[in-house]
Amino acid sequence: MVELTMATDRRYIADWLMSLQDRITEGLEVADGTGRFREDNWERPGGGGGRSRVLTNGSVIEKGGVNFSAVFGSTPDFLKQQLGPEAGSEFFATGVSIVIHPNSPQVPIIHMNVRYFETGSKVRWVGGGIDLTPHYVKREDARFFHQALKATCDRFDEAYYTAFKQWADDYFFIKHRKETRGVGGIFFDHLKADDRHGFDDRIRFMQAVGETFLPTYTELIRRNAGLAFTEREKQWQLIRRGRYAEFNLVYDRGTKFGLETDGRIESILMSLPPLASWEYDFQPAAGTPEAETQALLIKGIDWIKG
Amino acid sequence: MVELTMATDRRYIADWLMSLQDRITEGLEVADGTGRFREDNWERPGGGGGRSRVLTNGSVIEKGGVNFSAVFGSTPDFLKQQLGPEAGSEFFATGVSIVIHPNSPQVPIIHMNVRYFETGSKVRWVGGGIDLTPHYVKREDARFFHQALKATCDRFDEAYYTAFKQWADDYFFIKHRKETRGVGGIFFDHLKADDRHGFDDRIRFMQAVGETFLPTYTELIRRNAGLAFTEREKQWQLIRRGRYAEFNLVYDRGTKFGLETDGRIESILMSLPPLASWEYDFQPAAGTPEAETQALLIKGIDWIKG
Repeated sequence: MVELTMATDRRYIADWLMSLQDRITEGLEVADGTGRFREDNWERPGGGGGRSRVLTNGSVIEKGGVNFSAVFGSTPDFLKQQLGPEAGSEFFATGVSIVIHPNSPQVPIIHMNVRYFETGSKVRWVGGGIDLTPHYVKREDARFFHQALKATCDRFDEAYYTAFKQWADDYFFIKHRKETRGVGGIFFDHLKADDRHGFDDRIRFMQAVGETFLPTYTELIRRNAGLAFTEREKQWQLIRRGRYAEFNLVYDRGTKFGLETDGRIESILMSLPPLASWEYDFQPAAGTPEAETQALLIKGIDWIKG
Repeated sequence: MVELTMATDRRYIADWLMSLQDRITEGLEVADGTGRFREDNWERPGGGGGRSRVLTNGSVIEKGGVNFSAVFGSTPDFLKQQLGPEAGSEFFATGVSIVIHPNSPQVPIIHMNVRYFETGSKVRWVGGGIDLTPHYVKREDARFFHQALKATCDRFDEAYYTAFKQWADDYFFIKHRKETRGVGGIFFDHLKADDRHGFDDRIRFMQAVGETFLPTYTELIRRNAGLAFTEREKQWQLIRRGRYAEFNLVYDRGTKFGLETDGRIESILMSLPPLASWEYDFQPAAGTPEAETQALLIKGIDWIKG
């Protein structure tokens, strides 16, 4: 595995993230029933590396990645431009990133990321997010999902859920399509220590978000993986996956960060769907379940009140 | 159609591009045998619009777009940043863009674009390019293709082919994969009048490149569309199409220009494949035709001498 020669905090956080990765991959294997994660360790030329785990052709999961990485070294130019005076000449970043593409169009795609970032100038923060992309939006699943996220947020700050839910609506937005990627979730970044939150509190929040993933997604699998589906629903799934690929390749910051910092390509792009389709000018017919889902891909829906 | 209220040159060039679009769509329908282009006219809120033509589920072509557009208005910020003092406050851009995804993995994907650009400060230039993306590289086809491009270039300037072939190698490059998109072709941009070339000469070159497309691609169809193919070859085609989508969404300037100038999304993204696949860490086995093609996706090959 990656050799981490770093301060106590870094070591602690990276170790914790690796244990999170362990628990999540074990839990997903149980939920899947037959699929097993394959592990690939990689090193980054400029410093650090990662432990990628990908499960393909499972009973529930068609392609899913649960990746850990910890990278460090000279701050790349794009980060200096982005961060300004905070950048410093060195950086350290560690996180766990997950994207799961299920076989069945009845089961939603899910994404989760939690990350810790530190610059040479001793500025440090946590970031992360979870969002759900159902091929067919089911209000009860969206409510369950948002309730779970809100419960986690509320343990730390009653203002978190509202703020981070809105941030997710804005972030997981396919600008050129004027549609959200799915039913959203939460997104947060650059959470530093401040008057109301010590840095330990920020770390614990990031950890709690990481822990929310497994019970939430396995429940959504339990609810939906046994449902029948048709060829038409499978075709719609491929179109929705095309939109997912558009978001990740055009907008996703994690993907950009990986490509710009010379990360391992196959680990970064594990988020891309096993099969996707772009049908010219596809418009779901009025009154169909596809049109109903399309109409719900907008910002600002209160899924909990529904 | 789009109302073009503009100077003689603009009108002349846009009219010519529309006639090129007519000839190419007619020629491709003949080559395909059964497919027919569907036409969509669209208007751009800020000025101008386009005439998109897309053929799907033909005998040879699975999804192919031959699009004309002529857009104008206030210069968007990203163009001002890109062009600097040349930008001016108004712009005009017109062009024809083509991407063809064939059914058969034996037939290459092709892309062509020719464009004319003018800023409010009366700076004007032409640009364009053609490049070929075979799913399986066949040296005799690559040679034929590059010979056709060289013949067109040589009629205008003996330095063109070498310079524009290298430009294509650099431009049609999937940086994060460290591989070219295919066997390249030619690429050129910002060709203005200079000591050796009057602007009429630049325009005629752009027109000649546009005219090179049809006879070249229909010959490649004639050679390859009748060949048998296997399921394995079809699977490899889907992976190559995934790389094509990566290039277009991450790097392609035309796609960026379209998205940033509020073009019609379905016209801009007609370049995306009807079906594509991302298989985690796919590595063709040594000695296979797939590995042979992969090894040829590098810059700097002299396909004519080859």
